[in-house]
Amino acid sequence: MLEIDLIRHVKVDGKPALYGCTDVTPIASENARLLESLISQQQTNKAYQSIVCSPLTRCQFLAKEFSRRCDLPLEISPNLQEMNFGRFDGIAFDDLYFEDCFFEGNSVKNEQHHKVKTELHWSQLEAFFQAPAEIVLPGAEALSDFNHRVVKAWQDLIAEQVTIVTKKKESAIAKRILVVAHGGVIRMILAHILQLDWQKASWHQKLQIGHGSMSRIIISQPYQYEQLHQQVTSIAMPFLEEL
Amino acid sequence: MLEIDLIRHVKVDGKPALYGCTDVTPIASENARLLESLISQQQTNKAYQSIVCSPLTRCQFLAKEFSRRCDLPLEISPNLQEMNFGRFDGIAFDDLYFEDCFFEGNSVKNEQHHKVKTELHWSQLEAFFQAPAEIVLPGAEALSDFNHRVVKAWQDLIAEQVTIVTKKKESAIAKRILVVAHGGVIRMILAHILQLDWQKASWHQKLQIGHGSMSRIIISQPYQYEQLHQQVTSIAMPFLEEL
Repeated sequence: MLEIDLIRHVKVDGKPALYGCTDVTPIASENARLLESLISQQQTNKAYQSIVCSPLTRCQFLAKEFSRRCDLPLEISPNLQEMNFGRFDGIAFDDLYFEDCFFEGNSVKNEQHHKVKTELHWSQLEAFFQAPAEIVLPGAEALSDFNHRVVKAWQDLIAEQVTIVTKKKESAIAKRILVVAHGGVIRMILAHILQLDWQKASWHQKLQIGHGSMSRIIISQPYQYEQLHQQVTSIAMPFLEEL
Repeated sequence: MLEIDLIRHVKVDGKPALYGCTDVTPIASENARLLESLISQQQTNKAYQSIVCSPLTRCQFLAKEFSRRCDLPLEISPNLQEMNFGRFDGIAFDDLYFEDCFFEGNSVKNEQHHKVKTELHWSQLEAFFQAPAEIVLPGAEALSDFNHRVVKAWQDLIAEQVTIVTKKKESAIAKRILVVAHGGVIRMILAHILQLDWQKASWHQKLQIGHGSMSRIIISQPYQYEQLHQQVTSIAMPFLEEL
Protein backbone atom coordinates (compact mmCIF):
# COMPACT_ATOMS: atom_id res chain seq x y z
CA MET A 1 0.00 0.00 0.00
CA LEU A 2 1.10 3.50 -0.83
CA GLU A 3 -0.03 6.63 0.99
CA ILE A 4 0.40 9.93 -0.80
CA ASP A 5 -0.05 13.22 1.03
CA LEU A 6 -0.68 16.28 -1.12
CA ILE A 7 0.33 19.43 0.72
CA ARG A 8 -0.35 22.96 -0.51
CA HIS A 9 2.39 25.56 -0.06
CA VAL A 10 1.89 28.32 2.54
CA LYS A 11 0.71 31.85 1.76
CA VAL A 12 2.88 33.79 -0.64
CA ASP A 13 4.62 37.09 -0.16
CA GLY A 14 2.53 39.31 -2.43
CA LYS A 15 -0.70 41.23 -2.86
CA PRO A 16 -3.92 39.24 -3.37
CA ALA A 17 -3.80 38.02 -6.99
CA LEU A 18 -4.14 34.92 -9.15
CA TYR A 19 -0.71 33.37 -8.84
CA GLY A 20 -0.22 30.63 -11.40
CA CYS A 21 3.12 30.35 -13.19
CA THR A 22 4.36 33.60 -11.61
CA ASP A 23 7.18 32.57 -9.32
CA VAL A 24 6.59 34.18 -5.94
CA THR A 25 8.24 33.34 -2.63
CA PRO A 26 6.32 31.86 0.31
CA ILE A 27 6.03 33.84 3.55
CA ALA A 28 9.19 32.78 5.38
CA SER A 29 7.75 32.46 8.90
CA GLU A 30 4.82 30.30 7.75
CA ASN A 31 7.07 28.16 5.60
CA ALA A 32 9.36 27.61 8.59
CA ARG A 33 6.41 26.55 10.78
CA LEU A 34 5.20 24.06 8.18
CA LEU A 35 8.73 22.71 7.77
CA GLU A 36 9.08 22.13 11.52
CA SER A 37 5.72 20.30 11.61
CA LEU A 38 6.84 18.02 8.80
CA ILE A 39 10.21 17.38 10.45
CA SER A 40 8.58 16.47 13.75
CA GLN A 41 6.16 14.15 11.92
CA GLN A 42 9.20 12.28 10.55
CA GLN A 43 9.83 10.99 14.08
CA THR A 44 6.45 9.21 14.09
CA ASN A 45 5.09 6.23 12.17
CA LYS A 46 3.88 8.74 9.58
CA ALA A 47 7.37 9.31 8.15
CA TYR A 48 7.75 9.89 4.40
CA GLN A 49 10.23 8.00 2.22
CA SER A 50 10.40 10.56 -0.58
CA ILE A 51 9.20 13.95 -1.84
CA VAL A 52 7.81 15.06 -5.21
CA CYS A 53 7.47 18.79 -5.83
CA SER A 54 6.23 21.45 -8.25
CA PRO A 55 9.05 23.43 -9.89
CA LEU A 56 7.85 26.73 -8.41
CA THR A 57 9.70 28.46 -5.56
CA ARG A 58 6.71 28.60 -3.20
CA CYS A 59 6.71 24.78 -3.17
CA GLN A 60 10.44 24.13 -3.61
CA PHE A 61 11.48 26.24 -0.60
CA LEU A 62 9.68 23.77 1.64
CA ALA A 63 10.53 20.60 -0.26
CA LYS A 64 14.26 21.31 -0.64
CA GLU A 65 14.78 22.17 3.01
CA PHE A 66 12.69 19.19 4.17
CA SER A 67 14.68 16.92 1.84
CA ARG A 68 18.01 18.28 3.14
CA ARG A 69 17.10 18.18 6.83
CA CYS A 70 15.59 14.67 6.74
CA ASP A 71 17.79 13.20 4.03
CA LEU A 72 14.88 12.34 1.72
CA PRO A 73 15.08 11.95 -2.06
CA LEU A 74 13.43 14.89 -3.84
CA GLU A 75 12.07 14.84 -7.37
CA ILE A 76 10.89 17.96 -9.23
CA SER A 77 7.87 17.23 -11.44
CA PRO A 78 7.45 20.08 -13.98
CA ASN A 79 3.85 19.06 -14.74
CA LEU A 80 2.83 19.74 -11.13
CA GLN A 81 3.19 23.49 -11.75
CA GLU A 82 0.08 25.61 -11.09
CA MET A 83 -2.22 26.62 -13.97
CA ASN A 84 -0.90 29.46 -16.15
CA PHE A 85 -3.35 32.38 -15.88
CA GLY A 86 -1.81 34.30 -18.79
CA ARG A 87 -1.94 38.09 -18.62
CA PHE A 88 -3.79 37.95 -15.31
CA ASP A 89 -1.09 35.80 -13.74
CA GLY A 90 0.44 37.58 -10.75
CA ILE A 91 -1.44 40.86 -11.37
CA ALA A 92 -2.81 42.20 -8.08
CA PHE A 93 -6.62 42.27 -7.95
CA ASP A 94 -6.26 45.92 -6.85
CA ASP A 95 -4.67 46.75 -10.18
CA LEU A 96 -7.51 45.37 -12.27
CA TYR A 97 -9.94 47.66 -14.05
CA PHE A 98 -13.42 47.71 -12.54
CA GLU A 99 -16.44 49.27 -14.17
CA ASP A 100 -18.32 51.47 -11.74
CA CYS A 101 -20.18 48.95 -9.68
CA PHE A 102 -23.69 49.39 -8.43
CA PHE A 103 -24.81 46.97 -5.80
CA GLU A 104 -28.51 47.07 -5.17
CA GLY A 105 -28.97 46.16 -1.56
CA ASN A 106 -32.00 47.32 0.37
CA SER A 107 -32.35 50.45 -1.71
CA VAL A 108 -28.79 51.43 -0.83
CA LYS A 109 -26.70 52.40 -3.82
CA ASN A 110 -23.01 52.06 -3.51
CA GLU A 111 -20.40 53.19 -5.99
CA GLN A 112 -16.96 51.72 -6.10
CA HIS A 113 -14.29 53.52 -8.08
CA HIS A 114 -10.96 51.95 -8.79
CA LYS A 115 -7.91 53.45 -10.37
CA VAL A 116 -7.08 51.97 -13.75
CA LYS A 117 -3.54 50.63 -13.52
CA THR A 118 -3.88 47.93 -16.17
CA GLU A 119 -6.25 47.27 -19.01
CA LEU A 120 -7.31 43.98 -17.49
CA HIS A 121 -10.96 43.92 -16.55
CA TRP A 122 -12.30 42.35 -13.41
CA SER A 123 -15.29 41.17 -15.46
CA GLN A 124 -13.05 38.84 -17.53
CA LEU A 125 -11.88 37.16 -14.36
CA GLU A 126 -15.44 36.96 -13.09
CA ALA A 127 -16.52 35.24 -16.34
CA PHE A 128 -13.65 32.77 -16.01
CA PHE A 129 -14.62 31.92 -12.42
CA GLN A 130 -18.21 31.27 -13.54
CA ALA A 131 -17.24 29.00 -16.47
CA PRO A 132 -13.59 27.97 -16.07
CA ALA A 133 -13.76 25.28 -18.76
CA GLU A 134 -15.27 27.59 -21.38
CA ILE A 135 -13.46 30.89 -20.88
CA VAL A 136 -9.73 30.99 -21.58
CA LEU A 137 -8.09 34.10 -20.12
CA PRO A 138 -5.84 36.00 -22.59
CA GLY A 139 -2.53 34.20 -22.95
CA ALA A 140 -3.58 31.56 -20.42
CA GLU A 141 -3.60 27.78 -20.35
CA ALA A 142 -7.01 26.23 -21.11
CA LEU A 143 -8.52 24.33 -18.17
CA SER A 144 -8.59 21.14 -20.25
CA ASP A 145 -4.85 21.45 -21.02
CA PHE A 146 -4.20 22.03 -17.32
CA ASN A 147 -6.27 18.95 -16.49
CA HIS A 148 -4.39 16.76 -18.98
CA ARG A 149 -1.03 17.98 -17.72
CA VAL A 150 -1.83 17.34 -14.04
CA VAL A 151 -3.42 13.94 -14.66
CA LYS A 152 -0.31 12.96 -16.64
CA ALA A 153 1.91 14.11 -13.75
CA TRP A 154 -0.18 12.00 -11.38
CA GLN A 155 -0.13 8.91 -13.59
CA ASP A 156 3.64 9.23 -14.08
CA LEU A 157 4.10 9.53 -10.33
CA ILE A 158 2.01 6.41 -9.67
CA ALA A 159 3.76 4.43 -12.42
CA GLU A 160 7.11 5.36 -10.93
CA GLN A 161 6.24 4.73 -7.30
CA VAL A 162 4.00 1.69 -7.42
CA THR A 163 5.02 -1.73 -8.50
CA ILE A 164 2.02 -3.72 -9.60
CA VAL A 165 2.33 -7.19 -8.19
CA THR A 166 1.76 -9.66 -10.98
CA LYS A 167 2.35 -12.78 -8.98
CA LYS A 168 0.28 -14.10 -6.11
CA LYS A 169 2.46 -12.79 -3.30
CA GLU A 170 2.56 -10.07 -0.71
CA SER A 171 1.58 -6.68 -2.07
CA ALA A 172 4.27 -4.00 -2.51
CA ILE A 173 5.82 -2.71 0.70
CA ALA A 174 3.94 0.14 2.37
CA LYS A 175 5.43 3.57 1.77
CA ARG A 176 4.53 7.21 2.16
CA ILE A 177 5.24 10.04 -0.24
CA LEU A 178 4.83 13.79 0.18
CA VAL A 179 3.75 15.84 -2.84
CA VAL A 180 4.21 19.60 -2.47
CA ALA A 181 1.95 21.42 -4.91
CA HIS A 182 -0.70 24.07 -5.55
CA GLY A 183 -4.42 24.50 -4.81
CA GLY A 184 -5.51 24.07 -8.43
CA VAL A 185 -3.24 21.07 -8.93
CA ILE A 186 -4.48 19.30 -5.79
CA ARG A 187 -8.11 19.93 -6.79
CA MET A 188 -7.46 18.39 -10.23
CA ILE A 189 -5.83 15.29 -8.73
CA LEU A 190 -8.77 14.84 -6.33
CA ALA A 191 -11.32 15.24 -9.16
CA HIS A 192 -9.40 12.65 -11.19
CA ILE A 193 -9.43 10.05 -8.40
CA LEU A 194 -13.04 10.73 -7.40
CA GLN A 195 -14.02 10.74 -11.11
CA LEU A 196 -15.74 14.10 -10.70
CA ASP A 197 -16.49 16.71 -13.32
CA TRP A 198 -13.44 19.01 -13.12
CA GLN A 199 -15.10 21.40 -15.56
CA LYS A 200 -17.70 22.49 -13.00
CA ALA A 201 -17.16 25.93 -11.51
CA SER A 202 -18.49 24.73 -8.14
CA TRP A 203 -15.61 22.25 -7.70
CA HIS A 204 -13.16 25.15 -7.97
CA GLN A 205 -15.23 27.71 -6.09
CA LYS A 206 -16.88 25.76 -3.28
CA LEU A 207 -13.99 23.60 -2.15
CA GLN A 208 -11.25 25.51 -0.33
CA ILE A 209 -7.82 23.89 -0.32
CA GLY A 210 -6.23 25.90 2.50
CA HIS A 211 -2.60 27.01 2.53
CA GLY A 212 -0.47 24.36 4.21
CA SER A 213 -3.40 21.90 4.21
CA MET A 214 -2.99 18.20 3.53
CA SER A 215 -5.08 15.83 1.39
CA ARG A 216 -4.50 12.10 1.58
CA ILE A 217 -4.72 9.40 -1.08
CA ILE A 218 -4.42 5.68 -0.40
CA ILE A 219 -3.39 3.39 -3.22
CA SER A 220 -3.75 -0.33 -2.86
CA GLN A 221 -3.87 -3.41 -5.03
CA PRO A 222 -6.84 -5.59 -4.15
CA TYR A 223 -6.01 -9.24 -3.63
CA GLN A 224 -5.31 -11.05 -6.90
CA TYR A 225 -6.33 -8.13 -9.12
CA GLU A 226 -3.68 -6.66 -11.37
CA GLN A 227 -4.95 -3.12 -11.06
CA LEU A 228 -4.66 -0.35 -8.51
CA HIS A 229 -7.38 1.00 -6.28
CA GLN A 230 -7.12 4.71 -5.42
CA GLN A 231 -9.13 6.27 -2.61
CA VAL A 232 -9.27 9.71 -1.04
CA THR A 233 -9.31 9.51 2.75
CA SER A 234 -9.01 13.22 3.67
CA ILE A 235 -9.23 16.55 1.88
CA ALA A 236 -7.63 19.80 3.05
CA MET A 237 -6.90 18.90 6.65
CA PRO A 238 -5.37 21.95 8.32
CA PHE A 239 -1.86 20.72 9.10
CA LEU A 240 -0.59 23.63 11.15
CA GLU A 241 -3.37 24.94 13.33
CA GLU A 242 -5.26 22.84 15.81
CA LEU A 243 -8.39 21.16 14.51
CA MET B 1 -20.35 33.56 9.90
CA LEU B 2 -21.35 30.05 10.83
CA GLU B 3 -19.03 27.06 10.99
CA ILE B 4 -20.61 23.61 10.91
CA ASP B 5 -18.56 20.52 11.69
CA LEU B 6 -19.97 17.21 10.47
CA ILE B 7 -18.62 14.34 12.52
CA ARG B 8 -19.18 10.68 11.75
CA HIS B 9 -19.90 8.31 14.64
CA VAL B 10 -17.19 5.82 15.69
CA LYS B 11 -17.10 2.15 14.66
CA VAL B 12 -20.13 0.13 15.70
CA ASP B 13 -20.31 -3.00 17.80
CA GLY B 14 -21.20 -5.55 15.16
CA LYS B 15 -19.95 -7.71 12.32
CA PRO B 16 -19.04 -5.99 9.03
CA ALA B 17 -22.36 -5.16 7.36
CA LEU B 18 -24.31 -2.35 5.74
CA TYR B 19 -25.72 -0.53 8.75
CA GLY B 20 -28.39 1.93 7.69
CA CYS B 21 -31.54 2.25 9.79
CA THR B 22 -30.52 -0.73 11.95
CA ASP B 23 -29.89 0.69 15.39
CA VAL B 24 -26.52 -0.57 16.59
CA THR B 25 -24.40 0.70 19.46
CA PRO B 26 -21.04 2.36 18.95
CA ILE B 27 -17.90 0.72 20.39
CA ALA B 28 -17.83 2.16 23.91
CA SER B 29 -14.06 2.75 24.21
CA GLU B 30 -13.86 4.58 20.87
CA ASN B 31 -16.93 6.62 21.65
CA ALA B 32 -15.38 7.64 24.98
CA ARG B 33 -12.15 8.74 23.27
CA LEU B 34 -14.04 10.85 20.75
CA LEU B 35 -16.12 12.37 23.53
CA GLU B 36 -13.01 13.36 25.50
CA SER B 37 -11.48 14.97 22.38
CA LEU B 38 -14.64 17.02 21.84
CA ILE B 39 -14.78 18.04 25.49
CA SER B 40 -11.17 19.19 25.49
CA GLN B 41 -11.80 21.14 22.27
CA GLN B 42 -14.54 23.05 24.13
CA GLN B 43 -11.78 24.73 26.15
CA THR B 44 -10.32 26.29 22.99
CA ASN B 45 -11.56 28.95 20.58
CA LYS B 46 -13.12 26.11 18.60
CA ALA B 47 -15.97 25.61 21.09
CA TYR B 48 -19.44 24.67 19.78
CA GLN B 49 -22.63 26.47 20.76
CA SER B 50 -25.03 23.66 19.89
CA ILE B 51 -25.36 20.09 18.60
CA VAL B 52 -27.63 18.56 15.96
CA CYS B 53 -27.78 14.77 15.78
CA SER B 54 -29.18 11.80 13.86
CA PRO B 55 -31.83 9.84 15.80
CA LEU B 56 -29.75 6.63 15.76
CA THR B 57 -28.00 5.34 18.87
CA ARG B 58 -24.51 5.25 17.34
CA CYS B 59 -24.72 9.05 16.96
CA GLN B 60 -26.87 9.89 19.97
CA PHE B 61 -24.58 8.17 22.49
CA LEU B 62 -21.92 10.74 21.66
CA ALA B 63 -24.19 13.75 21.22
CA LYS B 64 -26.21 13.25 24.41
CA GLU B 65 -23.19 12.82 26.63
CA PHE B 66 -21.37 15.75 25.00
CA SER B 67 -24.50 17.89 25.46
CA ARG B 68 -24.81 16.90 29.12
CA ARG B 69 -21.14 17.32 30.01
CA CYS B 70 -20.72 20.69 28.27
CA ASP B 71 -24.23 22.02 28.81
CA LEU B 72 -24.97 22.43 25.09
CA PRO B 73 -28.42 22.43 23.49
CA LEU B 74 -29.06 19.23 21.52
CA GLU B 75 -31.54 18.81 18.69
CA ILE B 76 -32.44 15.46 17.13
CA SER B 77 -33.04 15.75 13.38
CA PRO B 78 -34.89 12.62 12.13
CA ASN B 79 -33.94 13.33 8.51
CA LEU B 80 -30.25 12.96 9.36
CA GLN B 81 -30.72 9.20 9.77
CA GLU B 82 -28.56 6.97 7.55
CA MET B 83 -29.96 5.51 4.31
CA ASN B 84 -32.32 2.56 4.78
CA PHE B 85 -30.77 -0.48 3.06
CA GLY B 86 -33.94 -2.58 3.29
CA ARG B 87 -33.50 -6.33 3.65
CA PHE B 88 -29.70 -5.96 3.52
CA ASP B 89 -29.70 -3.50 6.41
CA GLY B 90 -27.69 -4.85 9.32
CA ILE B 91 -27.15 -8.30 7.74
CA ALA B 92 -23.52 -9.36 8.18
CA PHE B 93 -21.64 -9.69 4.89
CA ASP B 94 -20.59 -13.15 6.11
CA ASP B 95 -24.22 -14.23 6.06
CA LEU B 96 -24.84 -13.27 2.44
CA TYR B 97 -25.12 -15.89 -0.24
CA PHE B 98 -22.14 -16.05 -2.61
CA GLU B 99 -22.08 -18.02 -5.81
CA ASP B 100 -18.92 -20.11 -6.07
CA CYS B 101 -16.32 -17.58 -7.01
CA PHE B 102 -13.51 -18.22 -9.42
CA PHE B 103 -10.79 -15.62 -9.46
CA GLU B 104 -8.51 -15.98 -12.42
CA GLY B 105 -5.19 -14.66 -11.30
CA ASN B 106 -1.97 -15.85 -12.83
CA SER B 107 -3.44 -19.17 -13.76
CA VAL B 108 -4.31 -19.79 -10.13
CA LYS B 109 -7.88 -20.92 -9.61
CA ASN B 110 -9.43 -20.22 -6.28
CA GLU B 111 -12.77 -21.43 -5.02
CA GLN B 112 -14.62 -19.71 -2.25
CA HIS B 113 -17.55 -21.49 -0.65
CA HIS B 114 -19.86 -19.77 1.76
CA LYS B 115 -22.60 -21.24 3.83
CA VAL B 116 -26.06 -20.03 2.87
CA LYS B 117 -27.54 -18.40 5.95
CA THR B 118 -29.86 -16.00 4.16
CA GLU B 119 -31.29 -15.76 0.68
CA LEU B 120 -29.63 -12.43 0.08
CA HIS B 121 -27.09 -12.52 -2.69
CA TRP B 122 -23.79 -10.70 -2.59
CA SER B 123 -24.26 -9.96 -6.31
CA GLN B 124 -27.28 -7.71 -5.55
CA LEU B 125 -25.13 -5.61 -3.24
CA GLU B 126 -22.36 -5.52 -5.83
CA ALA B 127 -24.84 -4.25 -8.45
CA PHE B 128 -26.04 -1.55 -6.04
CA PHE B 129 -22.45 -0.40 -5.33
CA GLN B 130 -21.81 -0.11 -9.08
CA ALA B 131 -24.99 1.90 -9.82
CA PRO B 132 -26.42 3.20 -6.53
CA ALA B 133 -28.88 5.57 -8.21
CA GLU B 134 -30.34 2.90 -10.49
CA ILE B 135 -30.52 -0.20 -8.31
CA VAL B 136 -32.88 -0.12 -5.34
CA LEU B 137 -32.17 -2.94 -2.88
CA PRO B 138 -35.29 -4.95 -1.83
CA GLY B 139 -37.27 -2.96 0.71
CA ALA B 140 -34.71 -0.16 0.68
CA GLU B 141 -34.87 3.60 0.29
CA ALA B 142 -34.04 4.84 -3.23
CA LEU B 143 -30.86 6.93 -3.42
CA SER B 144 -32.86 9.88 -4.77
CA ASP B 145 -35.26 9.74 -1.80
CA PHE B 146 -32.28 9.59 0.54
CA ASN B 147 -30.77 12.60 -1.22
CA HIS B 148 -33.98 14.65 -0.93
CA ARG B 149 -34.36 13.79 2.74
CA VAL B 150 -30.79 14.75 3.64
CA VAL B 151 -30.80 17.95 1.59
CA LYS B 152 -34.05 18.92 3.32
CA ALA B 153 -32.48 18.24 6.73
CA TRP B 154 -29.53 20.43 5.76
CA GLN B 155 -31.69 23.27 4.46
CA ASP B 156 -33.86 23.15 7.58
CA LEU B 157 -30.75 23.27 9.75
CA ILE B 158 -29.38 26.30 7.89
CA ALA B 159 -32.74 28.09 7.96
CA GLU B 160 -32.95 27.56 11.69
CA GLN B 161 -29.38 28.49 12.53
CA VAL B 162 -28.61 31.35 10.18
CA THR B 163 -30.25 34.72 10.21
CA ILE B 164 -29.93 36.37 6.84
CA VAL B 165 -29.03 39.98 7.36
CA THR B 166 -31.39 42.07 5.32
CA LYS B 167 -30.09 45.44 6.39
CA LYS B 168 -26.68 46.89 5.71
CA LYS B 169 -25.14 46.04 9.04
CA GLU B 170 -22.72 43.61 10.59
CA SER B 171 -23.29 40.03 9.54
CA ALA B 172 -24.73 37.52 12.01
CA ILE B 173 -22.55 36.67 15.00
CA ALA B 174 -20.03 33.89 14.43
CA LYS B 175 -21.06 30.54 15.84
CA ARG B 176 -20.07 26.91 15.61
CA ILE B 177 -22.35 23.88 15.43
CA LEU B 178 -21.55 20.18 15.66
CA VAL B 179 -23.59 17.76 13.54
CA VAL B 180 -23.24 14.09 14.52
CA ALA B 181 -24.23 11.89 11.61
CA HIS B 182 -23.39 9.02 9.25
CA GLY B 183 -20.98 8.42 6.36
CA GLY B 184 -23.69 8.43 3.68
CA VAL B 185 -25.39 11.49 5.14
CA ILE B 186 -22.14 13.48 5.29
CA ARG B 187 -21.29 12.52 1.71
CA MET B 188 -24.73 13.72 0.54
CA ILE B 189 -24.36 17.07 2.33
CA LEU B 190 -20.90 17.57 0.81
CA ALA B 191 -22.18 16.71 -2.70
CA HIS B 192 -25.01 19.20 -2.22
CA ILE B 193 -22.71 22.07 -1.24
CA LEU B 194 -20.10 21.26 -3.89
CA GLN B 195 -22.93 20.79 -6.45
CA LEU B 196 -21.54 17.40 -7.42
CA ASP B 197 -23.34 14.48 -9.02
CA TRP B 198 -24.44 12.41 -5.99
CA GLN B 199 -25.68 9.68 -8.35
CA LYS B 200 -22.14 8.71 -9.35
CA ALA B 201 -20.86 5.49 -7.81
CA SER B 202 -17.35 6.96 -7.57
CA TRP B 203 -18.45 9.64 -5.10
CA HIS B 204 -19.66 6.90 -2.75
CA GLN B 205 -16.87 4.42 -3.44
CA LYS B 206 -13.74 6.54 -3.81
CA LEU B 207 -14.21 9.00 -0.95
CA GLN B 208 -13.77 7.47 2.49
CA ILE B 209 -15.47 9.29 5.35
CA GLY B 210 -13.59 7.69 8.25
CA HIS B 211 -15.21 6.82 11.60
CA GLY B 212 -14.88 9.77 13.96
CA SER B 213 -13.66 12.02 11.11
CA MET B 214 -14.67 15.64 10.77
CA SER B 215 -15.74 17.63 7.70
CA ARG B 216 -16.08 21.40 7.91
CA ILE B 217 -18.49 23.80 6.20
CA ILE B 218 -18.26 27.58 6.39
CA ILE B 219 -21.37 29.62 5.77
CA SER B 220 -21.11 33.32 5.21
CA GLN B 221 -23.16 36.14 3.76
CA PRO B 222 -21.11 38.16 1.30
CA TYR B 223 -21.23 41.90 1.84
CA GLN B 224 -24.58 43.36 0.81
CA TYR B 225 -25.91 40.18 -0.78
CA GLU B 226 -29.04 38.68 0.68
CA GLN B 227 -27.96 35.12 0.09
CA LEU B 228 -25.67 32.69 1.81
CA HIS B 229 -22.37 31.40 0.59
CA GLN B 230 -21.51 27.83 1.61
CA GLN B 231 -17.99 26.45 1.29
CA VAL B 232 -16.33 23.20 2.24
CA THR B 233 -12.96 23.78 3.93
CA SER B 234 -12.06 20.23 5.00
CA ILE B 235 -13.33 16.73 4.34
CA ALA B 236 -12.84 13.72 6.62
CA MET B 237 -10.06 15.04 8.85
CA PRO B 238 -9.11 12.27 11.27
CA PHE B 239 -10.14 13.82 14.58
CA LEU B 240 -8.73 11.24 16.95
CA GLU B 241 -5.44 9.98 15.64
CA GLU B 242 -2.46 12.18 14.91
CA LEU B 243 -2.24 13.53 11.37
